[in-house]
Formats: sequence, C-alpha cells, structure tokens
Amino acid sequence: MDTQKPYVIGVDLGGTNTVFGIVDARGDIVAQDSIKTQAYKTADAFVEAGVECLKPLIAQVGGLDKIAGMGIGAPNANYYTGAIEYAPNLSWAHDGVVPLAQMFSDRLSTLAPCSSPLAPLKVRITNDANAAAMGEMTYGVARGMKNFIVITLGTGVGSGIVINGQLVYGHDGFAGELGHVKVDHSANARLCGCGRHGCLEAYCSATGMARTAREMLQLSEQPSLLREKNPDDIESIDVFLAAQQGDEMAKGIFNYTGFTLGEACADFAAFSSPEAFIFFGGLCKAGDLIMKPIEEAYNRSVMPIFRGKAKFLVSSLMNANAAVLGASALAWE
Amino acid sequence: MDTQKPYVIGVDLGGTNTVFGIVDARGDIVAQDSIKTQAYKTADAFVEAGVECLKPLIAQVGGLDKIAGMGIGAPNANYYTGAIEYAPNLSWAHDGVVPLAQMFSDRLSTLAPCSSPLAPLKVRITNDANAAAMGEMTYGVARGMKNFIVITLGTGVGSGIVINGQLVYGHDGFAGELGHVKVDHSANARLCGCGRHGCLEAYCSATGMARTAREMLQLSEQPSLLREKNPDDIESIDVFLAAQQGDEMAKGIFNYTGFTLGEACADFAAFSSPEAFIFFGGLCKAGDLIMKPIEEAYNRSVMPIFRGKAKFLVSSLMNANAAVLGASALAWE
Repeated sequence: MDTQKPYVIGVDLGGTNTVFGIVDARGDIVAQDSIKTQAYKTADAFVEAGVECLKPLIAQVGGLDKIAGMGIGAPNANYYTGAIEYAPNLSWAHDGVVPLAQMFSDRLSTLAPCSSPLAPLKVRITNDANAAAMGEMTYGVARGMKNFIVITLGTGVGSGIVINGQLVYGHDGFAGELGHVKVDHSANARLCGCGRHGCLEAYCSATGMARTAREMLQLSEQPSLLREKNPDDIESIDVFLAAQQGDEMAKGIFNYTGFTLGEACADFAAFSSPEAFIFFGGLCKAGDLIMKPIEEAYNRSVMPIFRGKAKFLVSSLMNANAAVLGASALAWE
Repeated sequence: MDTQKPYVIGVDLGGTNTVFGIVDARGDIVAQDSIKTQAYKTADAFVEAGVECLKPLIAQVGGLDKIAGMGIGAPNANYYTGAIEYAPNLSWAHDGVVPLAQMFSDRLSTLAPCSSPLAPLKVRITNDANAAAMGEMTYGVARGMKNFIVITLGTGVGSGIVINGQLVYGHDGFAGELGHVKVDHSANARLCGCGRHGCLEAYCSATGMARTAREMLQLSEQPSLLREKNPDDIESIDVFLAAQQGDEMAKGIFNYTGFTLGEACADFAAFSSPEAFIFFGGLCKAGDLIMKPIEEAYNRSVMPIFRGKAKFLVSSLMNANAAVLGASALAWE
C-alpha cells in the first residue's frame, strides 16, 4: 500500500441509490454520501452528480492525492473494458455501453489544481458479486484465502469466484454467473429470468424460495402458517418467520433450498475445489436454517475426494456498507 | 527458457505403460522409451526402473545438465504435494501416498558425476487431463490463450481448466473434475463410477456413449446396424462406424452425447467464460458427428451474454505422444 495515499473510494451503484464511500486500509468507511442512481437522463449527468457528491468527501480526507484508486460495483459491469454494458435496470445504460470507469477517471482528474496536475486516478469496475468477493478477501472472512467462492442470495443469485488469489473474469469479463448453472435438467424445470430453464437462481434466490413455498402449498395438504397469506404475496421473509416459529413446511422449504444450493456447490467443487463457500445476502440471515442443509447436501453429494474439505461460511460484511467495502477493495489491487 | 538447458522430460504414466520422452521447446520428442507401469512391486522399484530407462535418453541429448525439468502426467496426481494419492489402478500406489516427484528428483540427482553435482531437477506431476491442457497451451491449439477448458473424452471424462493463463488446481490440488458435474438431477440418473449419480462422465465418456446405445436399442424399435451386435459388446467405435454408414440411430446417439456435452459446457461458461473448449480423445475422431451437436446445444442453451463467443476446437496434439508432450509442458513453467 502507498502510505502517501491511505484511502480508496468505493462505490455501490445500485438500481435505486449510488453510495460513495472513502475507505481506509482497515476497511473503515471514513466518509460517505449518496445520490439517486436514476435521477439523471444521461451517464454524463450521473457522473457529474457523482463527482459533486464526492468533492466534499475527498476534501475531508485531504484531497485527491490521498486517494489510491476507485472501485465501483455495478450491474452488468465489465472489468476488462471498465464499462457498464446494456444494464436493463439502469435508465442511462440500458441500451448501450457506458465507459463509466474512464468517465469517472477523466472527470475526477479535473479536481486537481492546475498548478499540480495528478496522474489520472485508476478506476475499476465489476459486478456486485465480484465486488463482494474482493471485499471478503480484503476485509472479511476470506482474508488469507486464495481459492473461494462467494454466493450472493438476494433477489437473484450471484457469485464471485477467486482462484489462485485472483477474481475470475473469464475471457470476456463476464465469468462467475453461478446463479445461471442448471440444477434441474428435466422438462418441467423452472424458467429463469435469463432465459434458461432450471437455473440455480430460479430455485435459491429469495424469489425462487417464495416460488418453492407456493408450489409446496399447492402440492400438499400439510398445515402451515404460510396458508394464512395470499400465496401470491408470500416472500422469503414470511418463510423465515414461519420457520422460526417451528412451522414444518417452512423448515422444509429451507431444507429444499439448502439442499439445492449444496448440490450445486458439489458441482462447483468439481470445477475449482475452493477452500470455502461464503454466502452473502438476505437469505443467510436465516443462519442454520439454510446453512446446515447446504453443508449436509454438499458433503453427501460431492465426490469423495472433496468430502469434508470445504468450509461453509456466512459473510462477515453483512451490513449496509458491504457493497461499498467490496467495491473499494478493487481499488487496492 | 534456459538456453543452456534446451530439453525437458515428459512422462506419460498410464495404467499399462509409462512412456518417457525428451522434448525440445518446439514440442519435438527427440528421444523416447517406455516401461511397463505395473511390473514393479513397489514405487521404489518403479522409479529405479524409470531412471534406468531414462539414462540412455538423457545421455543422448548431452547429459542431465541439458534438462530444465521433468513433468509427469499420472492418475490421482496432486500438483501441490507432488504425490500420487490412492490411485485405484496402480498396484504400487493404490493404498497410500507416493511422493513420486520427489522420488524421481532424488534418484535422478545421483546420475550427476560426483565431481560436478547439479541442483536437484525440478519434477512436477499432475493428472493427465491437466497435462493435456498444459500441452495445448504450450504446443497446441491453445497457444496464446489465457482462458480455456480442455475436456478429455476417453474411458472417462476428464478436464483441465486454464484461467488467467494458469492451470486451476484448487485449494487441495484436485480441481478440474468436470466429468463429475451433474448433467441429470432426476431420480433415475445414471450411477457414475465416482459414486455420484448423473455425472457427465456417465453419459459422455466412451463407455457412457455405449450405454446410451444399449438404452436406445432397448427403448425403441428403430432399425439400426447396431442391432447386429450383442448389446453388451457394443462400444463407442461401433456407434461411430454405424454413423459413418448413415445409420440414423447411431447418429442420434452422437447427437444425444453432443447435446449433453454442449449443455454442460453452457454451465461451465457461467463459471469461467473461456475463450475455447478444446476436446481431446477417442470420441473426437468422429469430427462433426460429435462437435456439431456440442456447439449447437451450447449456443442454444448458454446465457445470452455468452452466446456465440466460445470456440469449439479439437486438440491438435491427438497422437500417441500427446500425453508425453502435455506432461513435458509442466516442466517449462
């Protein structure tokens, strides 16, 4: 680390808010602010607003020459090109390629006084699951690990894969989409948002789990607290609350979700044999309800050579700032 | 490359023969000999015989100080430890851990004259599919590629995965077992030799394809040249010969095998998004019969973001010496 530049900028670019944080080497966020992601008509206007938001934060830590770099976690981000490419949920990036890293770098360099121009700030960008993996390696439970996989369980299922201490971007910058590996090859496998059938995400995201709940309610006569709700309104949180009250069907839904994840992890082991699988996101808050069936299914299913070797961990960065930290970790590289 | 040491030793350690080759930087095998792998009661005796076999080959290129290193491709080999671990098909290694790399290094160093002792020869070991991947990257169709996957289609299905220009060994040295990723999650999925159900290998190895042939013959009334054989005697070569004569059922068996491989590759793309999938081994000799359905199924199944991007290639090292070349490539690292 450059001791002259003790801070990095981490940016969590989400569908609603974009959070900017100044982060030190221990993973403490020393300054933070945010803007509305979609309040801008063009990418230029968004970057302009972002830099305005950053100005006072940067001033607070002593100016741009205290900043070693900037990392952005964003949907449909390509690490290699530094661009957001055709992001369906971003108004200013849904129908084209936005070279966001370069745009921020250019715009930030104008902040330096003309009398002492700085080298352009290095800005890196990747998707949020990859950023989460970088965050775990830099500040979280994966410190010291060279081979691990982060699986994010949210509205979708994302992943960040680290092999030999490096994030896996693949040939085109889009590797690490483990939410879209098939876990059901049958004719009636669930349709996934990506267009494939039987993807992990269709079963083990929060929405996938709610879908499992609706299917189980329909297919069985088992009594359940979940029957008190309109099936269409059931969310994963309802399954969690019911399971906490000992509801057998709700526990069964967690078992099924965990089983499906564990079986998928057994396939991932055959690929990269990681030291640990690290889970991140809302569903992990269910703790053993989800983690136990994952680990049990894994060790039952995995090739004997891998059995009992992998750790199953929950992210230690599970708070509102995890995404900012993850993105900032990109900038230390 | 060390121009003082223009050669490496490549060793193809198979269940029947162990072939030793001296290889130059262009991938030419300048000297070669072999011993019977299982003619020895102990690993010590095997190494002793191997070094005796190597002596005249090494002398032929000017002595041990012309050799930059040695690479061994062997079953159940662990790159990290340099050992063969519990190899069921090797009489002298089936119930223990044999530190073969160290044993060869120690034994070979005694060949140097006492008057001019040499630094110990670096000996590396890995499984044959990983060696094949190294061979493709060093001498074959993957020259210049940083991200690709070699899939070997033989009695089993093996794989060697390269990411960021490095072979993927995983946390424990045993990564890259793509033959044991599930392609069928149904209750009647085929049992694989590894103990899992529904593995790629149970469908797309030579034996898996023969099994498909037997199942198709039983399940349908379709006329086929394959009906002239006792079903238990059908091998993949019979399917190939029938398909070459235009037999529809045989072509269907290739389509099914290729479809299953292509679907699996679509999952692998979600993992590491490789530039190319490179196929190696007997089944590839069927050419378009197998390669076309692989590529078609892949592009139909894969996530839109990856569609049309990956190359589907057949190894350019498909000859008797490919395994020796692959192993030798380890030694240049």
